[in-house]
Amino acid sequence: MKESEEIIQALLKFRDERDWEQFHNPKDLALAINVEAGELLELFLWKNHNEANRDKIKEELADVFSYAFLLAEKYNLNVKDIVLEKIKINGEKYPVDKSKGNAKKYNEL
Amino acid sequence: MKESEEIIQALLKFRDERDWEQFHNPKDLALAINVEAGELLELFLWKNHNEANRDKIKEELADVFSYAFLLAEKYNLNVKDIVLEKIKINGEKYPVDKSKGNAKKYNEL
Amino acid sequence: MKESEEIIQALLKFRDERDWEQFHNPKDLALAINVEAGELLELFLWKNHNEANRDKIKEELADVFSYAFLLAEKYNLNVKDIVLEKIKINGEKYPVDKSKGNAKKYNEL
Amino acid sequence: MKESEEIIQALLKFRDERDWEQFHNPKDLALAINVEAGELLELFLWKNHNEANRDKIKEELADVFSYAFLLAEKYNLNVKDIVLEKIKINGEKYPVDKSKGNAKKYNEL
Repeated sequence: MKESEEIIQALLKFRDERDWEQFHNPKDLALAINVEAGELLELFLWKNHNEANRDKIKEELADVFSYAFLLAEKYNLNVKDIVLEKIKINGEKYPVDKSKGNAKKYNEL
Repeated sequence: MKESEEIIQALLKFRDERDWEQFHNPKDLALAINVEAGELLELFLWKNHNEANRDKIKEELADVFSYAFLLAEKYNLNVKDIVLEKIKINGEKYPVDKSKGNAKKYNEL
Repeated sequence: MKESEEIIQALLKFRDERDWEQFHNPKDLALAINVEAGELLELFLWKNHNEANRDKIKEELADVFSYAFLLAEKYNLNVKDIVLEKIKINGEKYPVDKSKGNAKKYNEL
Repeated sequence: MKESEEIIQALLKFRDERDWEQFHNPKDLALAINVEAGELLELFLWKNHNEANRDKIKEELADVFSYAFLLAEKYNLNVKDIVLEKIKINGEKYPVDKSKGNAKKYNEL
């Protein structure tokens, strides 16, 4: 079994043992990703780039991944496929010669 | 090679071709996760649970995953390991008998 | 008329001319605040503290305020009152002698 | 003194008593708005539109307003002015005849 399938199976097992599928509609899963992303962000608040606590990052980042995998599962999206596809799209938006060494958004290049 | 390693390799290749490692400090990666999570959330704004556009979700969710994988890589965190570990922690916070069928937060159970 | 009432009246007029009250339930207003907060955050992404564009900040911050005022109106909350009340609560969580010059969270003081 | 000036004066007093201006650069204030917006959003997670707790909303919304006012102060922006200006801009993006009764984004009208 592939890694992402193993992760999703573990998440669904946890969810179903608690009868939580009823709460996990796509909109609330997107909300949950934002809530967890905010908790992750808080670990960096008022701090320099590398001062956040790695153990706490591990937990909050795991939460972001968990809801992201659950949302991917809802729409039957394969994580590797969608990331590779997006890299291809971004390659067209950010051609190497225009974007090398600068962080401008594609519509400002 | 494992799935998550393949994803991370593709992301690092894209990043390094553009010489963007200089911008990808942990704090800004956490920011980027929040920015992309917000764009994902916007697809559900003013809508019912299942009315969002799947193609757009695919792109925004891919962006969330991309920065989440890049942040995991920064801290040398294995995605499967951290998710499974968090499921275990959550299993203690949310015992089945107390949390079954309700969505209360652990500190309100 | 007080400032915040004037702001809210202008926002409600704009909303009602478009028959948008039907979409403005509290949950979606909270979503909208997050979406706009994410757009505001994007202006700082990959940048140093003071490099963001003031004109764009003006627009995105205005959006954050707009939905925050609309949510306050939904719950009949007076903005000045709730901010002053929260400052009082925070004063107890962050006593001057413990928090002076450090940015630790109250539960780590 | 105007309402928003009173609010800002109270926030600055609280900040300066704790010597926190050093942490309150614009980027971190934008982060703080996102963190607080996420905490506000969490109050609606897994819930119907009107099920969130008003007392908790009061506190989290106050936090969003506080950092939004502090960011406005950093850029010397008048809250009423920027909101009214944004309403005008939005009036052009969302003409009444095209947007009445529908929640589509301006680029989809």
